[in-house]
Amino acid sequence: MSTASPVLDELLDALRCLPGVGARSAQRMAYHLLERDRQGGGRLATALQAAMQRIGNCVECRSFSESERCALCAGSTRERSQLCVVETPADLAAIEHATGYRGLYFVLLGRLSPLDGLGPEELGLPLLQRRLAQGEVRELILATNPTVEGEATAHYLAELAQTAGVRVSRLAHGVPLGGELEYIDRGTLAHAFGSRLPLN
Amino acid sequence: MSTASPVLDELLDALRCLPGVGARSAQRMAYHLLERDRQGGGRLATALQAAMQRIGNCVECRSFSESERCALCAGSTRERSQLCVVETPADLAAIEHATGYRGLYFVLLGRLSPLDGLGPEELGLPLLQRRLAQGEVRELILATNPTVEGEATAHYLAELAQTAGVRVSRLAHGVPLGGELEYIDRGTLAHAFGSRLPLN
Ligand SMILES: [Zn+2]
Ligand SMILES: [Zn+2]
Repeated sequence: MSTASPVLDELLDALRCLPGVGARSAQRMAYHLLERDRQGGGRLATALQAAMQRIGNCVECRSFSESERCALCAGSTRERSQLCVVETPADLAAIEHATGYRGLYFVLLGRLSPLDGLGPEELGLPLLQRRLAQGEVRELILATNPTVEGEATAHYLAELAQTAGVRVSRLAHGVPLGGELEYIDRGTLAHAFGSRLPLN
Repeated sequence: MSTASPVLDELLDALRCLPGVGARSAQRMAYHLLERDRQGGGRLATALQAAMQRIGNCVECRSFSESERCALCAGSTRERSQLCVVETPADLAAIEHATGYRGLYFVLLGRLSPLDGLGPEELGLPLLQRRLAQGEVRELILATNPTVEGEATAHYLAELAQTAGVRVSRLAHGVPLGGELEYIDRGTLAHAFGSRLPLN
């Protein structure tokens, strides 16, 4: 469905890069902004531009950051002897939100998945290995998703940690199997985090 | 839930100006763009900026347009003796999509609603009256929504047309009462449009 306005058509099309947004929601969004919230639309344009241009990945933990090191890694308030490995920045945010964890993170930006071309190199595991070899990390907490690929990734990570002589733990059962960490309710996640089990 | 990145926090906040987008969808959208579609995000930023700055309202029909007159009003291919009055540009798009209508439109950008400060002036009715007085329009087609306010608006418009000696019609029954025109299935809308009834 195309309108008589090329500028509007382009907006309707561009909105569909957002996950879950089809032709009809794109129209509802565009018309809402044009009719009732042009200021919000302008603010969103600026925020998107800034985010796409300025947000990269932290050189230490690989999470999103607009500086070389993210605030968590650069700060001095976190316990540097604990390192929690998650698949995505969303998982990091979920753990920060739900638990009282005070250590640091390492974000894989994926999970081992050879068919998708995601191997140890793509997940930054050489960086993680160097970190473990430095001796600062005493406990590696595995918080990959309880899916087949997430479990395989955790198994691989546990071996890396054992080779480096670092203690490993895994989030406790309580996280439903086959689920996605990001969507688990806060209470379950906090409980599972609190009762994580040593793997070695 | 705030992240360690002010640029990302601002994006998460700004995304919530979109209708139907809460904290969780905003995060899903932002992370999707940052992880997998930065080009799409940049394109969306540019499209939003252009739309918010350049799209105004056509001086003839009040629909969205980046030029003084929209393509429909400025073109020579449409039947200028028929004028269809709709509440919103979304309703205009729905009729264009569903029916074979070849006339022009007039967009109220609302409906009569004194409690919301929407009177004849706000809906551009003086402009519509001048248009009817010019004698070019032979049929005014009322396609306001079948809601209480939409019906009251249609009633008011019918009187304007009668005063100007212009024939009036109203979309046929078939449009479910209490529904929003924009969300009606294409077939029902096409049928209702085709069997519109003369009101005078
Ligand atoms: Zn970091
Ligand atoms: Zn126009």
